[in-house]
Amino acid sequence: MKNIAIAGAGLVGSLVAIYLRKRGYSVTVFERRSDMRKAGAETGRSINLALSNRGIRALEEVGLADELKKVAIPMHGRLMHDTQGNLSSFAYGKEGQFINSVSRSGLNIVLMNEAEKLGVEFKFEQRVTKVDLEKTSLEVARNQLPVTSNHSFDYIIGADGAFSAVRSAFQFTDRFDYEQDYIDHGYKELHIPPGAGGSFQLEKNYLHIWPRESFMMIALPNPDGSFTCTLFFPFEGTPSFDTVKTRKEVEVFFKETFPDAQSLMPDLLHDFESNPTASLVTIKCYPWVRHKTLLIGDAAHAIVPFYGQGMNAGFEDCRILNSLLTKHNDNWENMLPEFQQLRKPDADAIAQLALDNFVEMRDLVADADFLLRKKIEAKLYELFPDKWIPLYPMVTFMDTMRYSEALAISKKQSKIMDDVMRQPDIETNWRKLDYKNIVSQLD
Amino acid sequence: MKNIAIAGAGLVGSLVAIYLRKRGYSVTVFERRSDMRKAGAETGRSINLALSNRGIRALEEVGLADELKKVAIPMHGRLMHDTQGNLSSFAYGKEGQFINSVSRSGLNIVLMNEAEKLGVEFKFEQRVTKVDLEKTSLEVARNQLPVTSNHSFDYIIGADGAFSAVRSAFQFTDRFDYEQDYIDHGYKELHIPPGAGGSFQLEKNYLHIWPRESFMMIALPNPDGSFTCTLFFPFEGTPSFDTVKTRKEVEVFFKETFPDAQSLMPDLLHDFESNPTASLVTIKCYPWVRHKTLLIGDAAHAIVPFYGQGMNAGFEDCRILNSLLTKHNDNWENMLPEFQQLRKPDADAIAQLALDNFVEMRDLVADADFLLRKKIEAKLYELFPDKWIPLYPMVTFMDTMRYSEALAISKKQSKIMDDVMRQPDIETNWRKLDYKNIVSQLD
Repeated sequence: MKNIAIAGAGLVGSLVAIYLRKRGYSVTVFERRSDMRKAGAETGRSINLALSNRGIRALEEVGLADELKKVAIPMHGRLMHDTQGNLSSFAYGKEGQFINSVSRSGLNIVLMNEAEKLGVEFKFEQRVTKVDLEKTSLEVARNQLPVTSNHSFDYIIGADGAFSAVRSAFQFTDRFDYEQDYIDHGYKELHIPPGAGGSFQLEKNYLHIWPRESFMMIALPNPDGSFTCTLFFPFEGTPSFDTVKTRKEVEVFFKETFPDAQSLMPDLLHDFESNPTASLVTIKCYPWVRHKTLLIGDAAHAIVPFYGQGMNAGFEDCRILNSLLTKHNDNWENMLPEFQQLRKPDADAIAQLALDNFVEMRDLVADADFLLRKKIEAKLYELFPDKWIPLYPMVTFMDTMRYSEALAISKKQSKIMDDVMRQPDIETNWRKLDYKNIVSQLD
Repeated sequence: MKNIAIAGAGLVGSLVAIYLRKRGYSVTVFERRSDMRKAGAETGRSINLALSNRGIRALEEVGLADELKKVAIPMHGRLMHDTQGNLSSFAYGKEGQFINSVSRSGLNIVLMNEAEKLGVEFKFEQRVTKVDLEKTSLEVARNQLPVTSNHSFDYIIGADGAFSAVRSAFQFTDRFDYEQDYIDHGYKELHIPPGAGGSFQLEKNYLHIWPRESFMMIALPNPDGSFTCTLFFPFEGTPSFDTVKTRKEVEVFFKETFPDAQSLMPDLLHDFESNPTASLVTIKCYPWVRHKTLLIGDAAHAIVPFYGQGMNAGFEDCRILNSLLTKHNDNWENMLPEFQQLRKPDADAIAQLALDNFVEMRDLVADADFLLRKKIEAKLYELFPDKWIPLYPMVTFMDTMRYSEALAISKKQSKIMDDVMRQPDIETNWRKLDYKNIVSQLD
């Protein structure tokens, strides 16, 4: 039985541990943080996230989808809030297609519990300090203490996130392409508490957006009736985290900019002051394999959160890794190169889509032309559900389509739609378009 | 008197040490390698390089240009060798414009000697192991020994090259954009010895190119009559370092591909086997300043060597740093942000130009259309020397023009030349073009 080390007990590390343990490997997971199932543990990253079909498909394969669906809150579309508090909604796909707001820590705990039940060994508060890629060995230090120990394995998987310690070892090898690119916006999490009796103070089954052109706030529902809001805001310029700092500035800014949300945020000033302002980075690198060590998830391809696909892409990594092990009869020497060649274009595609979607969410969703365009595309989807699938459903709901394929198709669609939108009086005539002809241009 | 630490005693580190010492600072240079002036020292990087106007301008400012011109070999243009050994040449600019082949170590030694003479302290075999950006302090280890010591300074300059240890500390700070991108080609240095009595076996005053579309070899003259050849060759594919490996393969390949050079390389098989195959990387990052630590030269912007501008750009960094210190009366808090804002677009421009020039050197210089285009541009330059300066002379000879400006102008020129080249029978009619009209399109 081969020994596999996994760096990182986050979402991706825990899921890949389950997949590998189910195949019969001996699996050890090293995690820098303390066990989040114990009281007082560091909470880490964002509170909730959007689980969609690609992620669910992997969870189904390991038998955990039903358990998670029970605590997930379906979000059927975007609900946009303007500065007057007027609402407009837009469905993500067809009837019955939705994404799910889930608790990051809740999901992580389910995965860790399952992995442990299967016999995966978790070592918490063990920070990876060195990786010897040629010897497939790890040096770990017990947190806060200088005591280190060495461990050798048959294979190592770096699932230790955007600032991967395993990837640091790759940096010292020749011809390792690497890029980390921060956007000009940071984010801050804020809170809308539940109403009386645990009621939801905003529409429950939507992803809420307050689009404000150069910035935005979003909110996702939690099972207790609360919403976790995230303000995506420039670090510099006007307005920005640089100009909205004091309690007075925050109060005035929220009252003017997000009046309906502000009225539901009793702890706004405290939260704004005490919650960190975090940065947003895209990380690309290649190769993902050196000798017998592999990078997956954010360690290989961290993306910005605007398509809700970071975790889903990481879970898809796990699913594909598992399917390639099956294909290659657990011959890792054959699996590893195929894995990285197959996944790299998809990781690059979703990285681009995630950056593009920020512009769509914060600016375009408040634009009449853009909304009309989306309406026409929705109509095409309704009329020809197998032929014209808009980008969002391709990425979010079609778990058999590669991200790179979705991106390529959407570029074709975009060109066709550019022509459609140039037709005279499209605002009034759009229902009478020759939809069949539009679809035929895709062939 | 403020204390400045410089990491790296290479070309840029030594030159900036001179500039700062001349301004009255106390300057300490930490260098990982042993003193190259002593016998048996590690030789490091490429043997010779092309010094041109931007570099010379800085050397003039510190009073070293005349001494270096004495040992430099002027190269007035490119001399292309085809597979039959036929030669064709192309001048770099106008009469009297040339670049200079200089010895890397010779130049470095002149700079170190001058710096020491002025009172700069060099500490060799002292590897920077840690930089505390907040405290402006360095931890250095004596090579091979675990003994470390700490030093605090007023300012630190990281001039420690493409794999900068100082930059590593920047990597741990938030919102540091970073990119390292390897090209598919590596390089290997080879040797053409002097002929009888120290004579040059190829034309002395040229940069020699053997353009072979997907790869190339170049040769630069040395004062002893020898030439240093560099083969730029893909790592993979056919042909590549992967397919040309054995003595037999090397011999056959060189005889077929570079017959005239091969006949002058008695030690080819030995050199090919024993000289390393090195990789080629572009490194971009930003910001270059954290607190009181600054990155310059390759540490801030390593580029591929195909425009012969890596060292020249680094020397220009030193010159501009010095001029900004003058402008700001040695107020570093004002100088540092201006330095990085001013230089970043120029570093990005020369990085792009260097990548583009590889295609030009290995492929386009053997293309009839391209050569005609260059001829027409040379004619424009001759007729309107102040109005139409081709890209190469702008980058190489115009030391008052920013790289970013040269790139912007060349894009305009390119569009105009695209139209010119589309004119019917341009091959025969090019002398009769309305050159005045062409130039006027630039306005």
